[in-house]
Amino acid sequence: MIKTLPNEGMLSPSLEDYLEEIYRFSIQQKTVRVTDISHKLNVAMPSVTKALSKLKAHKYITYERYGLIYLTERGQETGTYLVNRNQIIQDFLVFLKVDCNVAAEAEAIEHYLSVSTIETFERLVDFLKENPELHQKLLCYLRKGISSEQE
Amino acid sequence: MIKTLPNEGMLSPSLEDYLEEIYRFSIQQKTVRVTDISHKLNVAMPSVTKALSKLKAHKYITYERYGLIYLTERGQETGTYLVNRNQIIQDFLVFLKVDCNVAAEAEAIEHYLSVSTIETFERLVDFLKENPELHQKLLCYLRKGISSEQE
Repeated sequence: MIKTLPNEGMLSPSLEDYLEEIYRFSIQQKTVRVTDISHKLNVAMPSVTKALSKLKAHKYITYERYGLIYLTERGQETGTYLVNRNQIIQDFLVFLKVDCNVAAEAEAIEHYLSVSTIETFERLVDFLKENPELHQKLLCYLRKGISSEQE
Repeated sequence: MIKTLPNEGMLSPSLEDYLEEIYRFSIQQKTVRVTDISHKLNVAMPSVTKALSKLKAHKYITYERYGLIYLTERGQETGTYLVNRNQIIQDFLVFLKVDCNVAAEAEAIEHYLSVSTIETFERLVDFLKENPELHQKLLCYLRKGISSEQE
């Protein structure tokens, strides 16, 4: 189950995005550079270095200007949380077959949902996984919009 | 079922909040004044008049500076949509007994959810209303976090 972080709410949506991307890079490759983040998020270098300075000040990362970025233990923990959170939201949207751009929707709402709502999304998906017949019944209901036709 | 507005996405989150509150006032009292909105949203008058000018420019309201505010047909339609959307999110959180400040959570996420996700929330609640035993089973599952204990 997703963990509640003691520092929940301390990071702005923008800084959460930076930390999430740094974490994603950190599990894909040995070293993370400022330019990796700049390219991935399509943000100019001065903005990236400003954001990284804030993450460093809050002890999520260590980095030297134009150098390599390393996640601290706190950064690792929060990065894991942010990536899990994004995946849980995507799973929820996919399992309920919501007609939207799943990645974009998850990206848009992830910063604003409470941990309790995220947990509920996660458990709801687990419930549907464990009850496949019910899952199908629900999907059928969602697709047909039965309630609106009855009104 | 909630309607998809042709102008979805045109308003910023802040302007959506203004329009939502104007609509709420308009169904509670005969006239809506700039001061009503200023007090309700706890925003200084210059900011309110700036926002109202934008809503007027986009043809959601008519108003004269320091005067009365009237919703146009477009404003009525969008106001209805915004208030419904907020209620659907609150219903979803209440029905799944999410442990959060329901009003604050709905307020925080309403601007970022796609119409499809809102529709899914609405239909899921309808489904649970029509299947009360299943609703109880789900609530029991959510409360106990069975999946996490099994892992």
